Amino acid sequence: MPHDIRILTEVELRAALPLDRAAVDVVETAFAALARGDVVMPPILSMDLPQANGEVDVKTAYIPGFDGFAIKVSPGFFDNPALGLPSLNGLMVLLSAQTGLVQAVFLDNGYLTDLRTAAAGAVAARHLAPAQVSVAGVLGTGVQARMQIRAARLERPFDDVLIWGRNPDHAAACAADLSQDPGLTARVAGSAEDVVRRAQLVVTTTPARSPLVRAEWLHPDLLITAMGSDQPGKGEIAPQALAAADLYVCDRFSQCETSGELEAARAAGLMPDTPPELGQLIARALPRPPGCVICDLTGTGAQDTAIASHALGLLGDAGTVIRA
Amino acid sequence: MPHDIRILTEVELRAALPLDRAAVDVVETAFAALARGDVVMPPILSMDLPQANGEVDVKTAYIPGFDGFAIKVSPGFFDNPALGLPSLNGLMVLLSAQTGLVQAVFLDNGYLTDLRTAAAGAVAARHLAPAQVSVAGVLGTGVQARMQIRAARLERPFDDVLIWGRNPDHAAACAADLSQDPGLTARVAGSAEDVVRRAQLVVTTTPARSPLVRAEWLHPDLLITAMGSDQPGKGEIAPQALAAADLYVCDRFSQCETSGELEAARAAGLMPDTPPELGQLIARALPRPPGCVICDLTGTGAQDTAIASHALGLLGDAGTVIRA
Repeated sequence: MPHDIRILTEVELRAALPLDRAAVDVVETAFAALARGDVVMPPILSMDLPQANGEVDVKTAYIPGFDGFAIKVSPGFFDNPALGLPSLNGLMVLLSAQTGLVQAVFLDNGYLTDLRTAAAGAVAARHLAPAQVSVAGVLGTGVQARMQIRAARLERPFDDVLIWGRNPDHAAACAADLSQDPGLTARVAGSAEDVVRRAQLVVTTTPARSPLVRAEWLHPDLLITAMGSDQPGKGEIAPQALAAADLYVCDRFSQCETSGELEAARAAGLMPDTPPELGQLIARALPRPPGCVICDLTGTGAQDTAIASHALGLLGDAGTVIRA
Repeated sequence: MPHDIRILTEVELRAALPLDRAAVDVVETAFAALARGDVVMPPILSMDLPQANGEVDVKTAYIPGFDGFAIKVSPGFFDNPALGLPSLNGLMVLLSAQTGLVQAVFLDNGYLTDLRTAAAGAVAARHLAPAQVSVAGVLGTGVQARMQIRAARLERPFDDVLIWGRNPDHAAACAADLSQDPGLTARVAGSAEDVVRRAQLVVTTTPARSPLVRAEWLHPDLLITAMGSDQPGKGEIAPQALAAADLYVCDRFSQCETSGELEAARAAGLMPDTPPELGQLIARALPRPPGCVICDLTGTGAQDTAIASHALGLLGDAGTVIRA
């Protein structure tokens, strides 16, 4: 029985879905649902393709109360830049939560992932950043470095950003881009230490496999959101720093202990207890605790379902409708 | 960087891809590749949605030598018939095996799965059916009952088919449909026993959870292809029948021992050895062994990659091209 399926391109999605508080709100809803325990979120399907220096991940999650659920396909093929192509691509499919029928195909080349990842950083800032942030910082100089700063600024209206990356040219380009934002002054910092010591909100956005952030740099008036680690072996925060923070919060314990900052800390015998998840803190609506907080974001299928549902609601008549 | 993505509907796919020997050949290639051990095929991503009486499976596989690999999304929502909708739906996505870029989206509502499943039955018939088949039989009366008979007839040109199903009206409708095929006479049998005893090639296509085929009905001049079981708890062939066959062959051992006919047989303490896979028999190019053969097909991601690649090659200018 044919039915209408909406096909959206990256350009159409970027036009309809900016990074704004509405996107942050819907991702916050997903975190709260995760904490309630009624989300169905199976383990990630992951396929390594060493022959092609590639990998592909598939994530999904069902959130009660959402009309649809997303299935996201995320390929990463790391020889692509030599061909003039981005490494990361992919699409999302939104299916009806009542009938399983395909509702929409988002040919987003990863944009919705960028959006929901940045929105998760804003959720962390909303609940865990110090009330007053005058200086923010970012480690890393890519797409997420820019988007995380813009997302955090929705929640804490800082005017100064410090940027550090291994490649000074990339750091300068990132600073130049962010300085285009009204009221924002972005500067390249001399070191990661400089960023952490001077900022009240730091986002780490790198694929580092040896820690960038050391325990002795932490201070009481600080949120570090670590969103770069998403696979075993990656880690941006030294295990001793994780243990030294006044509060460590993860997006999903089962993911963070294998693929997040928690992996190395637990391997070092630190952090043996089960930490709170971000959604639990949202659900409890507690005030931000004093001191230094580290929030570990690995990315969840629940965020994908939230952003894809949000997208379909905003798209109006955009895109191409195919009867299939 | 935008690139062209081809979107195909079920109607377009049915027009371009009939069930023919070319489809069987490409699925045979996938089985042979599976046996060589160079296919990458991760475990199925499976999500149960009891709230909606639904489930969704995602399968994928990478086959060296194929330009692309498929990711298949298969939802089953079992309250759909009450809404006038089919229970099974879904789509396939074909990605470049070199770059991971999305090449095509097949909005097939499950047609490509039907096609590759029937083609696998034909591969089993090609290699494992007696040389002379005068009477074929089928248990079950649905889409696969029809397609499996048509697929088997590509390999063994029989003229007579016996059909048995629990619902006599459905069996009569299936027989009437198949009798439309040139040269084919399809009749409803009085029992499953009647089908098995009189046919040289039997396909079982049911979601049975208690066995339909008993050991004492087997005879030396017989292939039974059991394709209905695809989940734990399902089974069409009595464990004693599996043990009594002269040869048992599976499509993928790791799947059949948990979700195929082998599950119940091993639980009963029968069939403790590791059986051969269909692809191994193809690769060895041995003649069909004498006696009764049972072939257990649970369905593999390799078949999906094979049929999706085959589809893209045949489609010419069909479908809608979207630059995304």
